[in-house]
Amino acid sequence: MTNWQLIEDVRTRNPLVHTITNIVVANDSANGLLAIGASPIMAAAVEEMTELGEMADAVVINIGTLNADLVAAMLLVGKAANAAGKPVILDPVGVGATTFRRETVRRLLAEIQFAVIRGNIGELASIADVQWQSRGVDAGFGDAERAADIALKVARKHRAVVAISGAVDTISDGERVVTIQNGDPLLPQITGSGCLLSCVIGAFVGITEDYFEATVTASASYALASEYAARKLDEPLPASFRVAFIDELASWQTHDQAKLANIKEVR
Amino acid sequence: MTNWQLIEDVRTRNPLVHTITNIVVANDSANGLLAIGASPIMAAAVEEMTELGEMADAVVINIGTLNADLVAAMLLVGKAANAAGKPVILDPVGVGATTFRRETVRRLLAEIQFAVIRGNIGELASIADVQWQSRGVDAGFGDAERAADIALKVARKHRAVVAISGAVDTISDGERVVTIQNGDPLLPQITGSGCLLSCVIGAFVGITEDYFEATVTASASYALASEYAARKLDEPLPASFRVAFIDELASWQTHDQAKLANIKEVR
Amino acid sequence: MTNWQLIEDVRTRNPLVHTITNIVVANDSANGLLAIGASPIMAAAVEEMTELGEMADAVVINIGTLNADLVAAMLLVGKAANAAGKPVILDPVGVGATTFRRETVRRLLAEIQFAVIRGNIGELASIADVQWQSRGVDAGFGDAERAADIALKVARKHRAVVAISGAVDTISDGERVVTIQNGDPLLPQITGSGCLLSCVIGAFVGITEDYFEATVTASASYALASEYAARKLDEPLPASFRVAFIDELASWQTHDQAKLANIKEVR
Repeated sequence: MTNWQLIEDVRTRNPLVHTITNIVVANDSANGLLAIGASPIMAAAVEEMTELGEMADAVVINIGTLNADLVAAMLLVGKAANAAGKPVILDPVGVGATTFRRETVRRLLAEIQFAVIRGNIGELASIADVQWQSRGVDAGFGDAERAADIALKVARKHRAVVAISGAVDTISDGERVVTIQNGDPLLPQITGSGCLLSCVIGAFVGITEDYFEATVTASASYALASEYAARKLDEPLPASFRVAFIDELASWQTHDQAKLANIKEVR
Repeated sequence: MTNWQLIEDVRTRNPLVHTITNIVVANDSANGLLAIGASPIMAAAVEEMTELGEMADAVVINIGTLNADLVAAMLLVGKAANAAGKPVILDPVGVGATTFRRETVRRLLAEIQFAVIRGNIGELASIADVQWQSRGVDAGFGDAERAADIALKVARKHRAVVAISGAVDTISDGERVVTIQNGDPLLPQITGSGCLLSCVIGAFVGITEDYFEATVTASASYALASEYAARKLDEPLPASFRVAFIDELASWQTHDQAKLANIKEVR
Repeated sequence: MTNWQLIEDVRTRNPLVHTITNIVVANDSANGLLAIGASPIMAAAVEEMTELGEMADAVVINIGTLNADLVAAMLLVGKAANAAGKPVILDPVGVGATTFRRETVRRLLAEIQFAVIRGNIGELASIADVQWQSRGVDAGFGDAERAADIALKVARKHRAVVAISGAVDTISDGERVVTIQNGDPLLPQITGSGCLLSCVIGAFVGITEDYFEATVTASASYALASEYAARKLDEPLPASFRVAFIDELASWQTHDQAKLANIKEVR
């Protein structure tokens, strides 16, 4: 389920990750991708989406601050990447919050074949048409069993790897379901920490054909980096953590992921 | 004039603050809101403004990098929040700098009932139609008396709490005027420190009906956090300060605001 | 070729630098400009570009996340600045990556007279119509001789100072070519470090008429600040470096640039 060698391969091969993202997290996503050795490009003009979709090693579509122009760009770049055989990752930020987001995600899922769909439990529940207590872009509370059900359901329906991020990560390819019990509680206190994980998954699926293994490896490594970063802090405070975390991503090939990752196959 | 309990209440109740903001400060505004325990959402598509205006506990409209599409979104979300009885905060960034900004702010003020208007002295002078030496988005120089006059005038005219930020903050509800003499000089050296204050005020007015008290409490707490942050630095340098400041916001319920706030009723 | 007094003059005169930039780097560019004592304004509405082009001391056009609306704004602000005799700086981010970028830059160069064009070697090679191995927004590998040729060619054709940033900076005014061998390897690991340099050059050319001297001085000072920042780190990690670097910009008038700059006239 894991292939820790991918961490080193990303640094050697510098996959080009093209991201349509939002104004809140674009900077951290770019710096995080640079830190792990990937090559970020963030553009959103419809005029260049086809070329970039073909050129990139992976495309990440994040609906955080979407609008009609960006949706048009998302559709173009997703289809171009599909046609070129490049993996596309969906980050359905706050999809349950508004009708526009729900309809946009429905359309993206209908017209683009995604390799990976990554979000929090509230977002994936919305895609699965399952009731979930959710408010704004934050996840509601829930339990592990239902997360596994939702991951499995969405993975099967959309023939994609589904990664539900939270205190416990739940990842499914439609057959298997694994959980990852790693990660420091400071991580979700940083805006865009989920968006950056989607980009990091993009870098990993950009260099391998086993998207499930890549997603599990990226998610576990990312969670472990947050643990390493938190251990370096004098006090558990978010802005210091954010600096320490990006620094950890830059040095994560030196971590002992194989030993520290707490990954279980639950289905 | 103050209610320090609000600090704890924000952390307990996690008000949802919807912000239409600019590409420069969006990340700091989101991280700052998370740090104080609020729940940020930043979206700007006209298609979802009505829903978000109804759903949010407070709406912050920041014109930093405005354009015609964003103005349409601002009007929609402001009216929806008004209709739903949710407070709306205006941050008229650089309003005096261009005709487009002046006209946009005039229109926003005419069509939306704001709970709070927060800006620097140059911005509020422009709204008050008072002459003020101003350049770009930076405040010009002035004196306390004129700030009080301007705050009072704008507060009365627009039936809103007005907060003028600067070395001394001046806040009026159209009857009273208070000044707050707190805050470290490093604070304005961070881009978006004013924009984040507007969001923080949004979080406070989102959980109480006394907007004046909420604005004074938020402003004083914010200024005090900058003093705490500055004291932790080896040298007074801006990027280190920025990290320390967001960290302080995450721990400000442990500060002794009641003792350290220098608040005076001047009218 | 250098005038170190400009560093102090920027801090005293606070040039207003208007930047049309991208969602990835806007925050760092604003904080970096504030750190050196300049006054940033970032706006992009076509309605206000003429006023801002006239008002600013310098205008920086960065095509990082361009779209049709932004291109219209770029043309307006560039022409307004030209008419008002204000210097305009072009940062052709990733110009070689897509047809839309190439055509946009061609049009900007045809309709606006730039004072300075700053980019990496891949971007300048694209403008010079010279073959260069390039991928996405990252520079390819090359040699000093070809960089000098490209700088000279573009500088002559567009009657602008050309600054090619990299491990070695190459700067030409169409007659002379100088190289700067300063700068820490961490600098390009920060997204937008080149974009911020374009803004810093904007601040310098905003207060002097000798654009070549201003560009060489700004570039060398900037590279030296990265060396100072790197020396303060316990470990060479990017997020810590980013904080230290902006801090160094805030204190760079205390550096000994004259002694440490490694500048050579090579043509």
